[in-house]
Amino acid sequence: MAHINVPEGIPGIRSLVMFRPDTGQHLYDLAQLLLRGESPLAAADRELIATYVSHLNNCVFCRNSHAAAARCLYGPDHSHHVDEVLADMQQAAVSPKLKALLHIAGKTQILGKAVLPADIDAARNLGATDREIHDTVLIAATFCMFNRYVDGLASLTPTDEAAYAAMGQRLAEHGYVTPQRASTN
Amino acid sequence: MAHINVPEGIPGIRSLVMFRPDTGQHLYDLAQLLLRGESPLAAADRELIATYVSHLNNCVFCRNSHAAAARCLYGPDHSHHVDEVLADMQQAAVSPKLKALLHIAGKTQILGKAVLPADIDAARNLGATDREIHDTVLIAATFCMFNRYVDGLASLTPTDEAAYAAMGQRLAEHGYVTPQRASTN
Repeated sequence: MAHINVPEGIPGIRSLVMFRPDTGQHLYDLAQLLLRGESPLAAADRELIATYVSHLNNCVFCRNSHAAAARCLYGPDHSHHVDEVLADMQQAAVSPKLKALLHIAGKTQILGKAVLPADIDAARNLGATDREIHDTVLIAATFCMFNRYVDGLASLTPTDEAAYAAMGQRLAEHGYVTPQRASTN
Repeated sequence: MAHINVPEGIPGIRSLVMFRPDTGQHLYDLAQLLLRGESPLAAADRELIATYVSHLNNCVFCRNSHAAAARCLYGPDHSHHVDEVLADMQQAAVSPKLKALLHIAGKTQILGKAVLPADIDAARNLGATDREIHDTVLIAATFCMFNRYVDGLASLTPTDEAAYAAMGQRLAEHGYVTPQRASTN
């Protein structure tokens, strides 16, 4: 049961956004811009960064929902990257540049100061631009917020894998739409 | 030196917001709503929660700037609360309810799942409402993001205490206004 009185049966962040819609709108708009807006990083790669950080923060709701979104966005030929990264990021069959960015995301998850010049240089030597490094750090930092919001208030975490597959499909197709906006569409 | 090419001499998050203004606008709007918008928690207490979490995350820029803002908002008779909380939160001369909320913020800083029902019950028994608990967790989670964004990209951290006093005054008087908007005012 959630720590505060949120609508019953609504999973994860959606229940918290229904509790306080004004902050929720900013959170969804930020997620939409960061994960779906214009960026040199593919939307699938950005969802993978979100999934990896949520995994490191042991946030099951965010990990499973964003893993499902990443699988949809990668498509059947590349969706295996998601489970590879969750099992052992360093051994995953993703590009060296994406691996270096995931490494920076993992350092950001620990603490901002854990990101060292050597981590940045490694990514840059593999072709990462300032904008890719910026977006990686901000996505990782943002999920350190979302993960703590979702678990810090003990919002509902579904245990049914099919529920996440449906969420992933919705996130891949429609992006980050608040419950309020979704219900009026 | 920052990890990416941001405007020189601009401290902390302001330099990052000048690098990517569209995400920056959402971050500032979220801070303004959470820290200055309508809430059962006083703005000074909300700045104190932000300061405490930034201190736990060892983010000197955020800790010093929000400590300065909290001191301004508490005013001369109560500004000592800020240094008391930074020295030893449990011994600070703040209300038991605020201490219970700061404890929840500290748990959120560790990880969402570290917030236990007993932590929530303790705050509730001292009069904390659902909304106060929600806002405390979201402010704490949000600063886990801001702290990582600021330090993860190694943005400029001034060492001059007077610089923070000026920032605190500006934040107390004008709230969270992006560099873009401030420069057109």
